[in-house]
Amino acid sequence: MSNDKLLQMFLREPGQYVSGEKMSQELQVSRTAIWKQIQKLEAEGYSFEASRRLGYRLLNIPDKLEGAWLESRMETSRFGKLIHIHDTVQSTQIVARDAAENGAPEGTLIIAEQQSNGRGRMGRGWVSPKGKGVWMSMVLRPSVPIHFAPQLTLLTAVALCRSLTRLTGLSIGIKWPNDLLIEGKKISGILLESAAEDERLRYVIAGVGISVNLEQSDYEDGLREKATSLRIASGKPLSRSDVIVQFMQEWEQLYDLYQEQGFGPIITLWEALSISLGKPANLVTPQGTITGIPVGLDSTGAIKIQLDDGSVIPVFSAEMGEPT
Amino acid sequence: MSNDKLLQMFLREPGQYVSGEKMSQELQVSRTAIWKQIQKLEAEGYSFEASRRLGYRLLNIPDKLEGAWLESRMETSRFGKLIHIHDTVQSTQIVARDAAENGAPEGTLIIAEQQSNGRGRMGRGWVSPKGKGVWMSMVLRPSVPIHFAPQLTLLTAVALCRSLTRLTGLSIGIKWPNDLLIEGKKISGILLESAAEDERLRYVIAGVGISVNLEQSDYEDGLREKATSLRIASGKPLSRSDVIVQFMQEWEQLYDLYQEQGFGPIITLWEALSISLGKPANLVTPQGTITGIPVGLDSTGAIKIQLDDGSVIPVFSAEMGEPT
Repeated sequence: MSNDKLLQMFLREPGQYVSGEKMSQELQVSRTAIWKQIQKLEAEGYSFEASRRLGYRLLNIPDKLEGAWLESRMETSRFGKLIHIHDTVQSTQIVARDAAENGAPEGTLIIAEQQSNGRGRMGRGWVSPKGKGVWMSMVLRPSVPIHFAPQLTLLTAVALCRSLTRLTGLSIGIKWPNDLLIEGKKISGILLESAAEDERLRYVIAGVGISVNLEQSDYEDGLREKATSLRIASGKPLSRSDVIVQFMQEWEQLYDLYQEQGFGPIITLWEALSISLGKPANLVTPQGTITGIPVGLDSTGAIKIQLDDGSVIPVFSAEMGEPT
Repeated sequence: MSNDKLLQMFLREPGQYVSGEKMSQELQVSRTAIWKQIQKLEAEGYSFEASRRLGYRLLNIPDKLEGAWLESRMETSRFGKLIHIHDTVQSTQIVARDAAENGAPEGTLIIAEQQSNGRGRMGRGWVSPKGKGVWMSMVLRPSVPIHFAPQLTLLTAVALCRSLTRLTGLSIGIKWPNDLLIEGKKISGILLESAAEDERLRYVIAGVGISVNLEQSDYEDGLREKATSLRIASGKPLSRSDVIVQFMQEWEQLYDLYQEQGFGPIITLWEALSISLGKPANLVTPQGTITGIPVGLDSTGAIKIQLDDGSVIPVFSAEMGEPT
């Protein structure tokens, strides 16, 4: 009897009891064989509740991402309700972009256990080793004009920050525009790719990388001072499924709020979580470096920088660093 | 002797004389055969200048688009300096997007004699019959953030309007955001597709369709009241090459001005050419219909609409029509 067939019976009806009789009939094996198989699954990290009357109920699966299981746990209406899980892909962004071009609905989520060519901002690479983090891309189809696309980047950072803080209790701050840091070290990366026709956004692919269970040894020397993981920071491993489920819920709520009430509430939340405000910073732009104090976001999503002469200017695009 | 080989000799050195001796040597035929071939080409619409001493010089080619010839006529530094001409493609937008993804430099121009699936705004079709118009897409790599992408749409409309007015002397107006009209009928379509990573524009594909030499019979009944061509409006055919060369020059100049001085000068030019200002209009947006009087552009490229109560609001995305 295949281990897989038994598991599929539980995954087909998540949270439901499956009777020993049903299993034995459907799989054409004895109830003793079923019991042995259950024990084998438990050894692999699955856990079950047994009831003499009702049979077995799947309580938990090992920290292996399983689409149907994840979908069944989502308390959302669209985000993460359609999940495609891949073992290895070049980059989930590319897979999600193809899905979007082929009409995938909003909330379609592409997850990979591993990326062979994970991408960060500005064409930089992104460390995404097998099974140790959440490497995913989601299709968004926001009904806002292209002018507002950068607001979605900030919104995504707020949703991720809130969900990870809630799950771990760690103190996590947002560095403008969308890096999440714990004690100055990066734990996640967000990259939104927009495709627009004139002023209409056709779709946005929100790529999110979360370093959940990476260990010190997963980072090369140069990166260890700049990057960390939730596991390193908290001292204990975290369920990737929990991270995804919590994030999707927080993200959809904020996204709906944004589409109803506009960017105002997001500004307030972002500013409260930001660690970039009030401290002198260098902003490297294509037109040159601007030095000043970030004081908040403006209504478009640009960051307001107070210059030495007291004037405040919006900066739309830059790399932010500390003054040298 | 192939007609093509002789022609290639002229196209290889645009504007230069090619001696009868050189032609006869390279093509291994008599000078009488060369002379006959030249006559044949003249019958096809090519014209030459003959000099007893220097040989022949190609003066003009029939209204068939020829890449090397067009490139040689461009008085630009980047726009239209790399031209790919296709006989039939689905849509030049798709070809140009692939080129951009593969690193094509700014100004790379894709032209098709014919599109089997030309696209307009909002997924609408676009009539693009063989050889009768300019159907093209150009790669732009502007160093402005995504917020400003809609400004490029307005800039492109201004450049096209100025170049066509200069060439034809016709009175051409811009309907917001980027339709060009002659006596209320559309003569061109502009569609800008943007690809961005966060707030950085990776590239913009500017698709432009210009109805140059279409005749009444090229339009179906329903379209004849809404669309016209430069030929119909002016009563005479126009060289498509001239249209492209003039437009590229105007476009590059405005684009450079914009990158140096910002959107201010473009607002002034757009408003001067617009036929949408000062008259009541209905703006159909995803959130509902707004009725008011367009009074100008704001600094982001949104159109400012004066409502009945005197207040002025910016509208970022809408279809504009007359009040019913």
